[in-house]
Amino acid sequence: MDIVANTLLAAGASPAMIHSLAEIPDFTPQAQALCVNVGTLSPSWVPAMKSAAELMVKLGKPWVLDPVAAGASGFRLNACLALVGVKPTVIRGNGSEIIALSSVSCSIKGVDSAHGSMDALEAAKSLARASGSIVAVSGAVDVVTDGNRVVAAHNGVPMMQKITATGCAVTALIAAFVALDPSHPLEATASALSVFCIAGELGMDLAKGPASLRMHLIDSLYGLDEAALLSRVRITDL
Amino acid sequence: MDIVANTLLAAGASPAMIHSLAEIPDFTPQAQALCVNVGTLSPSWVPAMKSAAELMVKLGKPWVLDPVAAGASGFRLNACLALVGVKPTVIRGNGSEIIALSSVSCSIKGVDSAHGSMDALEAAKSLARASGSIVAVSGAVDVVTDGNRVVAAHNGVPMMQKITATGCAVTALIAAFVALDPSHPLEATASALSVFCIAGELGMDLAKGPASLRMHLIDSLYGLDEAALLSRVRITDL
Amino acid sequence: MDIVANTLLAAGASPAMIHSLAEIPDFTPQAQALCVNVGTLSPSWVPAMKSAAELMVKLGKPWVLDPVAAGASGFRLNACLALVGVKPTVIRGNGSEIIALSSVSCSIKGVDSAHGSMDALEAAKSLARASGSIVAVSGAVDVVTDGNRVVAAHNGVPMMQKITATGCAVTALIAAFVALDPSHPLEATASALSVFCIAGELGMDLAKGPASLRMHLIDSLYGLDEAALLSRVRITDL
Repeated sequence: MDIVANTLLAAGASPAMIHSLAEIPDFTPQAQALCVNVGTLSPSWVPAMKSAAELMVKLGKPWVLDPVAAGASGFRLNACLALVGVKPTVIRGNGSEIIALSSVSCSIKGVDSAHGSMDALEAAKSLARASGSIVAVSGAVDVVTDGNRVVAAHNGVPMMQKITATGCAVTALIAAFVALDPSHPLEATASALSVFCIAGELGMDLAKGPASLRMHLIDSLYGLDEAALLSRVRITDL
Repeated sequence: MDIVANTLLAAGASPAMIHSLAEIPDFTPQAQALCVNVGTLSPSWVPAMKSAAELMVKLGKPWVLDPVAAGASGFRLNACLALVGVKPTVIRGNGSEIIALSSVSCSIKGVDSAHGSMDALEAAKSLARASGSIVAVSGAVDVVTDGNRVVAAHNGVPMMQKITATGCAVTALIAAFVALDPSHPLEATASALSVFCIAGELGMDLAKGPASLRMHLIDSLYGLDEAALLSRVRITDL
Repeated sequence: MDIVANTLLAAGASPAMIHSLAEIPDFTPQAQALCVNVGTLSPSWVPAMKSAAELMVKLGKPWVLDPVAAGASGFRLNACLALVGVKPTVIRGNGSEIIALSSVSCSIKGVDSAHGSMDALEAAKSLARASGSIVAVSGAVDVVTDGNRVVAAHNGVPMMQKITATGCAVTALIAAFVALDPSHPLEATASALSVFCIAGELGMDLAKGPASLRMHLIDSLYGLDEAALLSRVRITDL
């Protein structure tokens, strides 16, 4: 939660972290977007997550799912599948997570042993078509798809994977971007991925390891200007 | 919890974080002060918070309340009001939080749309008189009141608001200060706010963004000496 | 959890944080080692911790216990004792924690008021003999014992105690080291303590306070090479 909240604050968003089912009805309508992250999932959180997501859908507002370690247990996979059923605007995961979700949602089997990027891409397209969500797969190259169109975001540095919860942070940033442009979720998602990864590139110029990269990434995100962004951004259609 | 615990350690205090009702009777008497923070509130925590606060009052020891996002839901507001009923030594919040608490505790209405500092100041004085607590309102200028006397602490830098949980951290620091001087809670509160904000000013001289400010703030708090403190402190009576 | 996960990532391990009993049967068999940390203990976590530990023992895989604040409450002490009964490969705590566990497990009394290193050492040896675990005591000098042999690890800097959860982080690192060399848990434990503390020494050369030490420690751990390690390591038999 720490890096997620600090990422959102650095980007100009206004985060609040809510766990309790009891405050969903009052609090959720005040949010412009919802990010549901199943990271350290507790059973009591699942109804709160589902209720908040359903309320956002009812209000016509965007919500984004981070299916952390979706394939790691049946409990976790079932929770994620129930959430996918509430029609997230965007689902963002790594290759393994998207493949795990896709192979159940779309009745494909046998992909456990091969999580290469093309496998993940096909899984992402299937999941996007089955769920109606934009699906983003993080990796050396991030891919974003609505099931037909596929966009690749090429920024980032490998050391970002050595910082815990950078994936969670970028999913929350996607929620903030989609809040600002809810009618273009694919573009908003690709933009958020690029902006976060460019902050990582700028941070890497100053970093001596993953902990200083974490600091410089957030500082760079806060200080990012349009010129630096435009000179570095690499988004392509696949 | 991370920045809260590290703030306390840097200031020379000895923090412990306890969630469970089951260990309040054994653990709480060992503490010199208690800080109750409703940040990511779960229903099961409320009885533990109330029990710990009641025990501190019974033992004649100070306890401090951080009513995070008090107005964001009925669940949260009710939890905060129940805690205010246990007579916190100090309540520290931002303007909106203090106004939310005050408008219910003191039967004032219609302040939701105007959270300027003078509104918050009147709300703080009302809340202090109704609760018997010292009330502190964080903002561009921090104000501290016992319902009659009002003290303003003028230190700090705006970027501190771009770091998650700096408010939580300073509330915990207030608890540490009040532990050392329980008979002067207003002065202890104003001092804690000043010390934390001066550490922020010193950190800002080295910071390139909110993440490096966070680091330099804690480092500066750890290294703060009396000379630096006295040359910078700005506390005035209002 | 933040510094624990980032420590493991910096060291080349692959952490996952699981709270829920429901996913122990699916997830735990995928882990090469388990670290159980009772830090902010909630009652619902205890059965999950016990179940995960039992499963690791059944699978013949190592697991490590961090009995945080074991003596702070009866609830916490009972939870720790129940976990000790599941035969951890390693128990790592500070002097007070090891003495608290040892005085109950081994029916010794009256050590509450004197937690000097020799008291802790005798407590550690008793606990190791009673539990069958390797017991490590952190302090100015770290000691590791199987009940007979005692090894001392002399690296580290005092300021590491001013960073919250460095103890938790090194316990997790011990789990990672024991995963790689499960048949030599004493040596793996002493090595993990040394490596973490050497990273602290290297970080201290650059640090200006506890927050920058935290950053530089993780960076140094990530960048640690064999030459730096060998020139600094100080492990002796007692």
